[in-house]
Amino acid sequence: MISEKMQGFVKNSSAIRAMFEEGKKLAAQYGPENVYDFSLGNPNVPAPAEVKDAILDIINNENPVLVHGYMNNSGFEDVRKTIAEHLNAQYHSRYSEKNILMTVGAAGGMNVILKTFLNPGDEVITFTPYFGEYRSYVGNYGGVLVEAATKEPAFEPDLADFAAKITNKTKIVIINSPNNPTGVVYSERTLVEIAEILYEKQALLKQPIYLLSDEPYRELAYDGVKVPWLPGYYLNTIVGYSFSKSLSLPGERIGYLVLPNEITDFEDVASAANTANRILGFVNAPSLMQRVAAKCLDAKTDVAFYDENRQLLYNALTEDGFTCVKPQGAFYLWVKSPEEDEKAFVFKAKERNLLIVPGSSFGCKGWVRIAYCVSHETVKNALPKFKSLAEEYGLGK
Amino acid sequence: MISEKMQGFVKNSSAIRAMFEEGKKLAAQYGPENVYDFSLGNPNVPAPAEVKDAILDIINNENPVLVHGYMNNSGFEDVRKTIAEHLNAQYHSRYSEKNILMTVGAAGGMNVILKTFLNPGDEVITFTPYFGEYRSYVGNYGGVLVEAATKEPAFEPDLADFAAKITNKTKIVIINSPNNPTGVVYSERTLVEIAEILYEKQALLKQPIYLLSDEPYRELAYDGVKVPWLPGYYLNTIVGYSFSKSLSLPGERIGYLVLPNEITDFEDVASAANTANRILGFVNAPSLMQRVAAKCLDAKTDVAFYDENRQLLYNALTEDGFTCVKPQGAFYLWVKSPEEDEKAFVFKAKERNLLIVPGSSFGCKGWVRIAYCVSHETVKNALPKFKSLAEEYGLGK
Repeated sequence: MISEKMQGFVKNSSAIRAMFEEGKKLAAQYGPENVYDFSLGNPNVPAPAEVKDAILDIINNENPVLVHGYMNNSGFEDVRKTIAEHLNAQYHSRYSEKNILMTVGAAGGMNVILKTFLNPGDEVITFTPYFGEYRSYVGNYGGVLVEAATKEPAFEPDLADFAAKITNKTKIVIINSPNNPTGVVYSERTLVEIAEILYEKQALLKQPIYLLSDEPYRELAYDGVKVPWLPGYYLNTIVGYSFSKSLSLPGERIGYLVLPNEITDFEDVASAANTANRILGFVNAPSLMQRVAAKCLDAKTDVAFYDENRQLLYNALTEDGFTCVKPQGAFYLWVKSPEEDEKAFVFKAKERNLLIVPGSSFGCKGWVRIAYCVSHETVKNALPKFKSLAEEYGLGK
Repeated sequence: MISEKMQGFVKNSSAIRAMFEEGKKLAAQYGPENVYDFSLGNPNVPAPAEVKDAILDIINNENPVLVHGYMNNSGFEDVRKTIAEHLNAQYHSRYSEKNILMTVGAAGGMNVILKTFLNPGDEVITFTPYFGEYRSYVGNYGGVLVEAATKEPAFEPDLADFAAKITNKTKIVIINSPNNPTGVVYSERTLVEIAEILYEKQALLKQPIYLLSDEPYRELAYDGVKVPWLPGYYLNTIVGYSFSKSLSLPGERIGYLVLPNEITDFEDVASAANTANRILGFVNAPSLMQRVAAKCLDAKTDVAFYDENRQLLYNALTEDGFTCVKPQGAFYLWVKSPEEDEKAFVFKAKERNLLIVPGSSFGCKGWVRIAYCVSHETVKNALPKFKSLAEEYGLGK
């Protein structure tokens, strides 16, 4: 009795989530210490101390009718103002509360934007590999996800392919940098060229093309790499942000959209996005967590923690003979499967209780993703398992 | 540039929300004590003490990686189990965690169910007057909302009209009792007859028809009125619940769906609803509030507080000469407009800083809704304004 569309969605349902559920089963069977679950981007680093302090402060000192009550569907005005000012201090922008819409995580924000813009048949371009949920989000509104290539081994966008994929159906381009699943941070040069292409195509096709920058990993960059602020390169940019990773609050579903004044039809878009947030059933971002986030904008997650895992894993797996992309951001290691069918490789890994995700979940066969937002212990204990996998494939000889 | 569908949604956007925003502007202009905002179902009663205690207990004693982390998209298993057992104790049911899906409020839950079931063109029946957002929720998935009548003055369903509206396109029937906006609690007799009609039509049309019971006001009933538990009358019933009113947490977006084993295709539906929760961008219900809700299932909101407002308003307005439905549940007073065009009446009320919502927002012209989830003071201070309105219309003479 479920809808035809949902039958497709269920069938193609998230391999990541399936692996996460599998991990919990295996942990119950073998003991959690004997299962190495690298499936999900679920931070093992606790929320920074500021989060607990903020919750206690708000619960003890603010009016509960306000804290837990309805507000404008776009979020509390004081929270939005604080976030706008925080961005202004970082990026020399001039945002006000009107440019911020609080969302149910980045996933909620993306659905709001896609609902706002997409007519059935409209195209949304993104670069492979990409977070597989984009396909569902775009499909929710009858849109078509169009894949543009990246170039190995750096996994930076293939700009010629990108330009060729833009048509008069293209309404939105999604960029995700630092990237899930590769850990690549697109270079400033790449972004300048993407902006040039988009400006040219806008002029040629006589229609706006919006860039949607999906930035849950903005603060997670290593080796001093700077993550460029996309609205500084292309005016028609909307930013989707989440506190899931920066404050280790993935379950709380709290994030925001930045809708700059400079985007085409700003007033209409802001008003429609506010309505979309309401009618999609989000209504508003969770109220307490809005207020918590505003108090924790300067709090930092423990990047050094992830960096230690990154070094450990990258160095060990490279030494084992695996081909890996060295991550510059996020907390994912992108590894070439030693056999063409990466699902077979994932299956062999699972026989060792190593849970990793096949690249086909990200529109990129032949590779796998290892989410290293786990404890150091899990990484260390998993290394001999990866080594034995490498040996089974005769790598590193 | 916004989508054609969104242009329609924005144009028909919620009059309730517009009035709520207007109220905030008027409050800034005239002082909050001089504005009588009866627009929104935003409880003025603070959350019960158990909520604060639960938050402090969880934040001080539970592992933050668990509390704020991802879990199964359907919610924490222990939370779902606790809720199932709580329902079992009340309704002699045999639910387990498999029958509970934690949602982003009732609005999130309804969107999950409509996404799960609706093919474009499928019909969803509800009784007028109804919460206007149903039209948007159904429209999100290409469904068609079909209105079945109620009979004045009791505003109980017109069963002949209901039976006539059921076709082979009917997939879902939405019931909302205690009802927003009328405050009516549908009688047990009505529900028995609705169930009979549905069983007959299922047999005749050889297809399942699901009943979706939208129950944010389940605990809010007066004068000892009992709110029947719909799965006890009709097996194909899904219940959508929210803690917004029972725990005064509307901004927190926390609720759940009950998917009984007895519904047609239970396994498919549960699996699809889990997927829908994820891909619509909810991902999961806010994690801390899931855990808070599970600890506060026995907490009660202050029904006596609402009852006092109910009596005050109902008695005064009836004495003024207004025709009112005496609410048996929820916190809305449904009042007949003294002129045919209730929007003109709403406008005259607004001239006195009385903010109320036109019945056309609920598919029922000629009536207005007064949300009395406000302070006693607001009610008391508003009474002379209502009296002067009545006098302007020459009522009660």
